[in-house]
Amino acid sequence: MRIGVFDSGLGGLTVFRALRNALPTADLLYLGDTARTPYGSKGEHTILRYSRECADFLCSRSIDALVIACNTSSAIAIEELKKDLPLPVFGTIDAAVGESMRGENASIGIIATHATIAKGAYQRSIAQKLPRVEVIAKACPLFVPLVENGILSGPVLEATLDLYLAELREKRLSTLILGCTHYPFLRPAFERYFHGEVRLIDCADAVAREVAGALTQEPWTNKAVTGRSEFYVTDEPSRFDYLARVFFEQEQPQAVQVEELATHRPCGI
Amino acid sequence: MRIGVFDSGLGGLTVFRALRNALPTADLLYLGDTARTPYGSKGEHTILRYSRECADFLCSRSIDALVIACNTSSAIAIEELKKDLPLPVFGTIDAAVGESMRGENASIGIIATHATIAKGAYQRSIAQKLPRVEVIAKACPLFVPLVENGILSGPVLEATLDLYLAELREKRLSTLILGCTHYPFLRPAFERYFHGEVRLIDCADAVAREVAGALTQEPWTNKAVTGRSEFYVTDEPSRFDYLARVFFEQEQPQAVQVEELATHRPCGI
Repeated sequence: MRIGVFDSGLGGLTVFRALRNALPTADLLYLGDTARTPYGSKGEHTILRYSRECADFLCSRSIDALVIACNTSSAIAIEELKKDLPLPVFGTIDAAVGESMRGENASIGIIATHATIAKGAYQRSIAQKLPRVEVIAKACPLFVPLVENGILSGPVLEATLDLYLAELREKRLSTLILGCTHYPFLRPAFERYFHGEVRLIDCADAVAREVAGALTQEPWTNKAVTGRSEFYVTDEPSRFDYLARVFFEQEQPQAVQVEELATHRPCGI
Repeated sequence: MRIGVFDSGLGGLTVFRALRNALPTADLLYLGDTARTPYGSKGEHTILRYSRECADFLCSRSIDALVIACNTSSAIAIEELKKDLPLPVFGTIDAAVGESMRGENASIGIIATHATIAKGAYQRSIAQKLPRVEVIAKACPLFVPLVENGILSGPVLEATLDLYLAELREKRLSTLILGCTHYPFLRPAFERYFHGEVRLIDCADAVAREVAGALTQEPWTNKAVTGRSEFYVTDEPSRFDYLARVFFEQEQPQAVQVEELATHRPCGI
């Protein structure tokens, strides 16, 4: 089984790692669109176009399933990709909402990028599955640049936590969905900010569990596979290499640069 | 006279406005690569490729001169663009350094993106023109997302000013170059942080003065021109339209979207 995973940048490596743990023998292909990151502050039509190009690139490498490891792309593009592609497509949003249903919920908070919150996909998914639960959605656009600049503690982070989360802390949430793959890097800060009293849902673990559950039922799990990892990025690989070494500790993955995603031929679209 | 101006996003509108004031009868064409913004956190080769594509697009619209309104592009790409293009090319860096020479300088600070500081173009330009002056360069990657999210005051900005500028304040600088076209939006905060004791150099005014000085000598200033403004963006125009209305107050510029810069034919390259 070969699974393609894409993200606007490197935050989706949290999803990649969870998938690797859940499916140790699958071939996993990761594409980070680092030359055009971030997606969360861009327009819907642009995000849809970029998501299609990422999917096309991975499809041209004979994948059996696609995982959208970017919440912004999951919010904007999953319906179109599911309709257009002849293979199973998984996104982070339904997975994270499904995961949040496992516990008791009086009120659920969602934090994510501007584009994800504006599209309302989390809000709709919760309204369908948990119609009586109060939902508070908050766009937190500064968390991504904080993570990308390695600011995981200190006064700037504290002030930003207050800016975005003070309102949510007052509401005494039962559950908070981390609706962006960068946010797990801030998990310790969130735990502290909410005094450990809010259940934090990490969409990386949630989508990995959903993918593993769905795909182990399928006949292609018997296909010969090597447990290979392939990494592709659209910007130069140096920053990927650095971050991935920190992130995967022992492993030393190397990324291949793909300059123009738009020039790759679609498959099945 | 038709002048092309490009930036990675919308920060370059500060340069556009200064040019419009300096050259009221020139045709000005602005291109903001909003679908791939920001450039400052990306790799050198990628920034060079994007800058070439922006220049090609503007050249295909019969411009007489090109202004690089992005400090990151000016740092990485100006030499290549000057070599390759059959027209005058102006950047922000030499203009801002030239402007800083007008006063007395014991020590000059430069604040800019990661890529601009890492390339060392400001540092080299000052070393050539003012060899005895102490130079302190500081990458401040969070200022761009703060400006783009409208955070121009308050606790998050205060903490970020301390994070990046405390060291520069202690050094008792004579001059601080705002080496990113987003930074003029934070000018009041910088004035206050340095107690009005540091001369702030805005590269938008500096480059407009240089362009006006150079081009009014040229024969093409007699060409029939209309003082027209044209705006192009690569992401959807809605955010440009909003920002531009705030920014230009009375005028209501409208932007045209250009989806794939890479597909435009080069001119003269």
